[in-house]
Amino acid sequence: MHIDLNRSSNKSLPQQICETLSQRISSGLLHQGAQLPSVRGLAVSLKVSQVTVSKAYAELARRGVINCSQGKGCFVAETEHKQSQEGAGWQSKYDDYLPRAQLWRNFDYSEVKYPFHLAAIHSELLPLDYIGATMASLVTKQPELMATYGNFQGDFELREMMSGHLQSRGIALSSSDLMITSGAQQGIDLVARTFVGPGDTVYLEAPSYTGAIDVFAGRGAEMIFVPMDSEGMRVDLLTKMCDQRPPKLIYTCPTFQNPSGVTMSMTRRQRLLELARSYSCLLVEDDPFSDLYFHTPPPPSIKSMDLDGHVVYMKSFSKVLAPGCRIACVAAEGNILSRLIAAKSASDLGSPLLTQRAVLPFISKKYDTYVGQLRNALRGRMEKAAKLLKEYAPPGVNWVLPEGGLSLWLELPSALGVGRLHDLAERESISFLPGDVCYAGDTPSRHIRLCYSQMNEADMEQGLRLFLRLLSRFLA
Amino acid sequence: MHIDLNRSSNKSLPQQICETLSQRISSGLLHQGAQLPSVRGLAVSLKVSQVTVSKAYAELARRGVINCSQGKGCFVAETEHKQSQEGAGWQSKYDDYLPRAQLWRNFDYSEVKYPFHLAAIHSELLPLDYIGATMASLVTKQPELMATYGNFQGDFELREMMSGHLQSRGIALSSSDLMITSGAQQGIDLVARTFVGPGDTVYLEAPSYTGAIDVFAGRGAEMIFVPMDSEGMRVDLLTKMCDQRPPKLIYTCPTFQNPSGVTMSMTRRQRLLELARSYSCLLVEDDPFSDLYFHTPPPPSIKSMDLDGHVVYMKSFSKVLAPGCRIACVAAEGNILSRLIAAKSASDLGSPLLTQRAVLPFISKKYDTYVGQLRNALRGRMEKAAKLLKEYAPPGVNWVLPEGGLSLWLELPSALGVGRLHDLAERESISFLPGDVCYAGDTPSRHIRLCYSQMNEADMEQGLRLFLRLLSRFLA
Repeated sequence: MHIDLNRSSNKSLPQQICETLSQRISSGLLHQGAQLPSVRGLAVSLKVSQVTVSKAYAELARRGVINCSQGKGCFVAETEHKQSQEGAGWQSKYDDYLPRAQLWRNFDYSEVKYPFHLAAIHSELLPLDYIGATMASLVTKQPELMATYGNFQGDFELREMMSGHLQSRGIALSSSDLMITSGAQQGIDLVARTFVGPGDTVYLEAPSYTGAIDVFAGRGAEMIFVPMDSEGMRVDLLTKMCDQRPPKLIYTCPTFQNPSGVTMSMTRRQRLLELARSYSCLLVEDDPFSDLYFHTPPPPSIKSMDLDGHVVYMKSFSKVLAPGCRIACVAAEGNILSRLIAAKSASDLGSPLLTQRAVLPFISKKYDTYVGQLRNALRGRMEKAAKLLKEYAPPGVNWVLPEGGLSLWLELPSALGVGRLHDLAERESISFLPGDVCYAGDTPSRHIRLCYSQMNEADMEQGLRLFLRLLSRFLA
Repeated sequence: MHIDLNRSSNKSLPQQICETLSQRISSGLLHQGAQLPSVRGLAVSLKVSQVTVSKAYAELARRGVINCSQGKGCFVAETEHKQSQEGAGWQSKYDDYLPRAQLWRNFDYSEVKYPFHLAAIHSELLPLDYIGATMASLVTKQPELMATYGNFQGDFELREMMSGHLQSRGIALSSSDLMITSGAQQGIDLVARTFVGPGDTVYLEAPSYTGAIDVFAGRGAEMIFVPMDSEGMRVDLLTKMCDQRPPKLIYTCPTFQNPSGVTMSMTRRQRLLELARSYSCLLVEDDPFSDLYFHTPPPPSIKSMDLDGHVVYMKSFSKVLAPGCRIACVAAEGNILSRLIAAKSASDLGSPLLTQRAVLPFISKKYDTYVGQLRNALRGRMEKAAKLLKEYAPPGVNWVLPEGGLSLWLELPSALGVGRLHDLAERESISFLPGDVCYAGDTPSRHIRLCYSQMNEADMEQGLRLFLRLLSRFLA
C-alpha cells in the first residue's frame, strides 16, 4: 500500500498513516471486511518502525474504523455505508496512488429523489433550448467539427469570446492567455498534476471544495487548512502559517465559497495576492459563482488585480449553463499557462470542439440577460429554503443565509452522528453533503451542505420539509 | 527544477538528469535561451553531487542542446524549432512535475497543408452525418441530457451496448466492467495516475505511443523499452528483463502497433498474459486498430484470454467514428476498475453524457457494415501510398507494408538530420512524426511515421509525392 509520508510535517507519522487509511476507507477505496497489510509488512514498505504502524492501527481500531484480533490481523469494519467493489486476490495487493476519492463516494446518487448533496442547477432553469438549437445547427451545417481534434488550448473562437467576457469583468487578458477545460474540476486537476508534488504545501480554506482536496491528496501534497470568518479566509493567520511552511500553492474560492457560502472582503483579496507574490507562488482562484449574487455584486476577482501572473483563475460555465457540456475557462499567463496546456494534451488530447462551439453564441449574446434572471430565480429558491428552515429547523441548528451561490451550510449542534443522519436521510431518498469531506483529515465536522437549486421548486420544498422533520426527530 | 531520480535504475544519475533535461527542452518546456539552474543549485535541490550535475550539463553541451560559458552559466541553445512561451521571471523558477510533453509539441499543426504526422481518419470517411443527426435529435428531444453530469463510470446505456459489442469480439464482460473515457489517451492517463508512481517499472514496446510515454514520464516511472520483431514485442527478452526488474505495468498495442504497424502473434499474446499473471501486474492493451485490417483479421485480443483481471483493455472509438466526440471504452475488472472510476471522478467529474449518447445508435446498428467499408477505403489509401513509395522513395529508405491501421513506418538510412528534415518539410507545409518521440530517452531514431488517412486522397498523394521528392533531395 502506497502512502505518501511527509517527515517534515507537523503531523506525526502514525497520524499521517491513520488519516490516509481512514480516508481510503471512508472513500470506499478499501472495501468493508478487507484485510489491512500486516504491521510488519506495512512498516517495511513505508520504511517506518513497526511501533509507528501499530500506533496508527490502534487509533483506527479505537475509532471503530477497523477491527483487529490477535493472530488474525486487522480488517476494515462493516458499516451501513455502500459497499465498494471487491477485486480478485492479486488486485487488492496491487498498489495505487489514490489516497482518497470523496467525490466518487459522495457525488453520484442518481437514484435519490431529493438530491441536496449536489451543487447544481435544475434543468428547467438552464438555457438548454438555445444551446441545443446551436448544437443541432452545428452538427447539420458543420459535421466536420465532430471529426476534428480540438486545439489543446481550446477553440480559438471560444477563447476570443471568453477574453471579451472576462474583460467586461475587469480581467484584461487576451485569448492566448486562456485555456478551455472539461469543467473547473479538470482545471484544478491540471494545476495540481503540473505544479504540486509529494510534500508540497498547499493552503486551502477550512472548509474547502471536496474535489480540490481529492486532487491535491492524490499528488501527495501537505494540505493545510486556514480558518475563515465572515470576511473569508483569515489571511492574517495564513501569513503566520506561511512563516512556518512557505506555500507552493494557495487554493481559494473567494466568492460565495463552496461550501461555506462566505465571500472574501476586498482587503483580504489584496493581501492574499500580495502574499502569493511575496512567496512567488501560485494562487488558484476558483470562481464558479460570482455572477450568482442575490443583492449586490461581490468584490472584483483577485485575478483582476494580478499584474504578474500569480493567479490561475478558473471560471466554470458548466454549472451555470449546461453541466453536461463540461466547459470551463482557465486564465493564466506565460509559461504557467503553457505548462498547463502541455498537461492538458497528455490528459485527454483536448476537449471536444463541438461542445465548445455549442456554448459560444449563448455566452456572447444572451449570457448577461440570462444570468440576471437566474439570479432572481436562485434568490427565490434561497428565500423559500430560508423560510422553511426558520419554520422547521430544530433548536441548535445554525446557518447564515448566503449572499449568492447554490447552497446552504448548516451547523448542527454536534458532529456526532452525522454519518448516521446521512444513512437515515438516504432511506427517505434524501442526500446531503457531510461537512467532513470538505477537509483533508478525518476530524468530524458538525456541518452539512444542502443545495436548494438542484431540484424543481416543489421537490426542493417537499424534500427540505422532510429532511428538517427527520433532523428534528434525529436531534430529539 | 524537479527531476525524478531513480537510484536503482540501470541508468547513471548524470544520464537520467541529461535525458530529462533533453526531453524538457525538445518538448518545448524549457524555452530557447532559458537559463538552466546553476550546477550548485541543481545539485542541492536534487540531492546529488555537483560532479553529477556537471557531467549531465557537459553531455548536453556536447550534443549542442545547451551552451555553457564560464561565469555566465548554461543556456538552452537556439534552434529553428518553434518557440515556446516564456514566462515572467518568477514563473521560470516555479517548479513543475512535467518532465516531457511530446504530444503537445508534435500533435498540433493545424496550419500545415499536408498533416502526415497525425494518425487520424479524414472526415469524408467518417459517419458524421449519422452521428450528427442523432445528436441533433437528442438535443431537441432530450435537452436535459446537456444538464446532467454523466455517471463517472459512463452512461449505462452506452456501456450495455459496448458490452454486447465487445462480446461479439470475444471479450465476455458486462456493462459493470466497462468505463467510458474521453478518448484512450484519458484511459492511459487514468491507469498511470492510479497505479504508476516514481521509480515503478513500466515496460513498453520499442518504439511506442508518444502519448503513453508522456503520461508515464509524468508519473516518474522507470520506462524500459522492449525490442520488437515481425511478431511484435520480444516477450522472450521481456521475460529476462523482468528477472532484473519486476514489472509494475506492461503497456502494449499488439495489433497494427502504433507507430510500427507490427502485429503480435498469438503465441506471444499468450506468453505476455502469462508473464503479467506470474508477476501479478497489470497489462494495458491499447487497441484502436483491430477492426481496421486489410486482409485477414488479427489474432484475438489479449483481453479475450484474460481470466483474472490482469488486462486493462482500451478500445478507442474516437479514431474510427468521430475524434471530436472523444469516446473510448476501458474494460477492467474488480477493484482495478473501481479505482480507475475514482480517478476519473477527480479528473473531470465524468465525460459529457450527450456525446456518449450520440455515438450509441451508430455503434449498435451500423458499425459492422461501416467498418467493412472503411477497411476497403483505408486499404486503397495504403496501396496508393505504397505505389508512390515504390516509385519515388530514394534508395536506402525501407518500409514494411502494414496489414492494417493508419500509418507507414519508414526507416531512413541514418538518424542524422531527421530534425533538419522535419524543419525542411514544415517549410513546404508537410508534417510527419519523428521516430525519436516514440522513445523515452533521447537516442536519435532513423524512423519517421506517415499517416495516409488523414487527408483526402488527392492531397495525400500530392503531399506524399512532394515529401518523397524532398526526401530524395535531402538524402542526396
